[in-house]
Amino acid sequence: MRKADVIVIGGSAAGIPAAITCRRHYPEKSVLLVRSEKQVLIPCGIPYIFGTVGSPEKNLIPDAVLEKNGVDFLVDEVIDIDCDSRVLATAGGEEIGCQRLVLATGSVPMVPPIPGVDKENIFPMKKDVSYLQHVLDVLDGASDLVIVGCGFIGVEIAEECRKRRKDLNIKIVEMLRHCLQLVYDEEFCFKAEEVLMDQDIDLLLDEKVEAFLGDGKVEGVKLSSGREIEADMVIMGIGAAANTGLARKAGLEIGPTRGIQVNRYMQTSDENIFACGDCAEKVSFFDGKPSGLKLASIAGMEARIAGANLFGPQRVNMGVIGVFSTMLGDTAFAAAGLTETLAREKGYTIIVGEAEAINRHPGGMSGAAKLKVKLIFEAGSRVILGGQVSGARSGGELINGISACIHQRMTADDIATFQTGTHPALTASPIVYQLVNAAEIAIANSWKLSTRWRMPG
Amino acid sequence: MRKADVIVIGGSAAGIPAAITCRRHYPEKSVLLVRSEKQVLIPCGIPYIFGTVGSPEKNLIPDAVLEKNGVDFLVDEVIDIDCDSRVLATAGGEEIGCQRLVLATGSVPMVPPIPGVDKENIFPMKKDVSYLQHVLDVLDGASDLVIVGCGFIGVEIAEECRKRRKDLNIKIVEMLRHCLQLVYDEEFCFKAEEVLMDQDIDLLLDEKVEAFLGDGKVEGVKLSSGREIEADMVIMGIGAAANTGLARKAGLEIGPTRGIQVNRYMQTSDENIFACGDCAEKVSFFDGKPSGLKLASIAGMEARIAGANLFGPQRVNMGVIGVFSTMLGDTAFAAAGLTETLAREKGYTIIVGEAEAINRHPGGMSGAAKLKVKLIFEAGSRVILGGQVSGARSGGELINGISACIHQRMTADDIATFQTGTHPALTASPIVYQLVNAAEIAIANSWKLSTRWRMPG
Repeated sequence: MRKADVIVIGGSAAGIPAAITCRRHYPEKSVLLVRSEKQVLIPCGIPYIFGTVGSPEKNLIPDAVLEKNGVDFLVDEVIDIDCDSRVLATAGGEEIGCQRLVLATGSVPMVPPIPGVDKENIFPMKKDVSYLQHVLDVLDGASDLVIVGCGFIGVEIAEECRKRRKDLNIKIVEMLRHCLQLVYDEEFCFKAEEVLMDQDIDLLLDEKVEAFLGDGKVEGVKLSSGREIEADMVIMGIGAAANTGLARKAGLEIGPTRGIQVNRYMQTSDENIFACGDCAEKVSFFDGKPSGLKLASIAGMEARIAGANLFGPQRVNMGVIGVFSTMLGDTAFAAAGLTETLAREKGYTIIVGEAEAINRHPGGMSGAAKLKVKLIFEAGSRVILGGQVSGARSGGELINGISACIHQRMTADDIATFQTGTHPALTASPIVYQLVNAAEIAIANSWKLSTRWRMPG
Repeated sequence: MRKADVIVIGGSAAGIPAAITCRRHYPEKSVLLVRSEKQVLIPCGIPYIFGTVGSPEKNLIPDAVLEKNGVDFLVDEVIDIDCDSRVLATAGGEEIGCQRLVLATGSVPMVPPIPGVDKENIFPMKKDVSYLQHVLDVLDGASDLVIVGCGFIGVEIAEECRKRRKDLNIKIVEMLRHCLQLVYDEEFCFKAEEVLMDQDIDLLLDEKVEAFLGDGKVEGVKLSSGREIEADMVIMGIGAAANTGLARKAGLEIGPTRGIQVNRYMQTSDENIFACGDCAEKVSFFDGKPSGLKLASIAGMEARIAGANLFGPQRVNMGVIGVFSTMLGDTAFAAAGLTETLAREKGYTIIVGEAEAINRHPGGMSGAAKLKVKLIFEAGSRVILGGQVSGARSGGELINGISACIHQRMTADDIATFQTGTHPALTASPIVYQLVNAAEIAIANSWKLSTRWRMPG
């Protein structure tokens, strides 16, 4: 029987960092990564195969990253786990024993039970090279594309399809009132919607799909408003569900959002079996309640906790903050933590500050673009709850600074007075630097809300 | 007699945010900013007037920022402060009374007592529009430029002069062994030196200026190695000294680095008089010892502390971390906190991790460039002491994330497991994201240094 000290099942955004982390923290342990895909797609890169990147083959995670870190790998499907003996059985007929097991089996795209959803040319976004190549082939012959879901996957695919096909009719149907509404406050959603509409992408918001129409192949979509729209191709981008088949079969506990239940150390109900990434249950950083967030960045964080804890507790999972970024047109959109809306829903009294400035100084420096930051703080403690960014590309790194602030529960005063470097060719001037000013403006706004006692001059 | 609740003396990187912060925190207080310059230069932008920006007139801080925040201003020179009555006298003959005073009088360029330093066409970098216009005029007629000092000012001016004049001979003389040596470790310095030499800028390192030669006008520079080099123009970029004349005259205490002595609230030896920015004494965040660092970003931080504390303690100065960034050629260089060298000098045992990756994923996304991160941690606690970044422009925001980590004394494990967002068009992939991986690699390196007990599998 083949043996490895550690087996990781799954070879993507959770499996790879879990395996690497284990090797880094326990270099004396052997690690075998088992995955069912011959080639692994970069998950966040999938929308870009429709345009910028051009094909699934150009969007692969190289196996070199495993080899470089001394991780063995096997392309095979694990079909059974015996928890007591810690032996796995694979579809290829192998039996493999281990001391510790990490489940990083990811998620599968959700397919809602809408009448007609099984018609031809309706595509949920499966992470599979040949499947996606087929989707591209169909796209190249399509006239009317309907995308269901105006979250990140939906908007990114819409834009990339526009890059590939100037002549295609593209519509996005979304049941919420705004595009990206779960991640951004309204003013950011408006801006994103503008960018999409400028590219001749139709947004059908506050609309539900009632049925997919057509005879074999999809021909149209019937909406809850009664409207019917033409469609010879549909892409489903409404989210993903934890892939827990193997864990259920092994008898592991399943949690409230249907992920594999894990504790703060990423251990499942079997202490020798860990889980991380989309397949694992999550809780919110802010209130410890179950969270359905599924992101590659969360997968990586959980993998680095699981990998380090395999042979003893090293790291604790503080729960998901949720850090998002994307690029629509020439505008970066990024967010971390709670929006104003979500913070109010969770019962917080909040103060908010916004600051916008050019990302260069003086404005005559090359590459100048606007960058806006909005920060949300709890009103009493002034602890940061969330931040949103739009504008220049450097926002993609700025949001991680904001995430650090959230993780460390920094106050508006902390953020206003920690040292932030600036440079004419790289950032806004120190006087108008957005992160600091948004914190200051939130404080200034709080004075307006309160009748705080002041020392006489 | 004219009166204002608060008077700020100085209208640049410290004075402006001090005035604005006061208005934001105490909207009922009137604030008058008094400055001697008719027009205020963006200090960090000064090197760029030599090339990219083209003239001092295009590198001004607009007065609108004061007006927008309800700050009055007066162009006049304060010549005397009566501490007891809190009345100022100006060169223009005004007497102005106030409740609180903020000194933000900045710094003046250092001019070392080198023989011949007063010859014509030797220019310290004074922050004055007409002076700098004259420097530009001389530059346009020069053949051999020698820059003394290979710190930020020196390297930025050298590059910008090259942009303006392809035919100019440019040499930089530096007494240390490397360019930017006080801020970066050797491998980053090497990279910066390469970028400069690629632009045909001669670096004379480990060399001191013994004398400036010539008859009236400068004609050459004599070096400590005995070598003599031609020069019909010299720019001095060797740092700045606190501008404390007014404070000394008023009898305020002066500190060990010759700045105005302040406490953690930015109060001078007179509790109603505050000081911030280049004119104020500083201490290191790491050990509380006096620090000679002078940066616009520090000025802004201190100004936001001083402004908020004017009528009661709100914020405490934790000391200077030192956050730097610049752009040389197409490469951003940024640093925060201690270098490996400085950390060892301060007596720390350290662990170090480095990670380099492309700032896009997959690599076929547009705008792909390498970005490298080096992190330095104290070995026992694994608390971060510093970070250095080179490569893509987004490093200019990434360094502020690192600064937040330093400010919050995050450990390598904290950094490895706080959630960092990534996106194909904006950052490296989550698997190779540099900040996180540098922390992980530092930990992996630490195992090699120790024989830590491990739990049996």
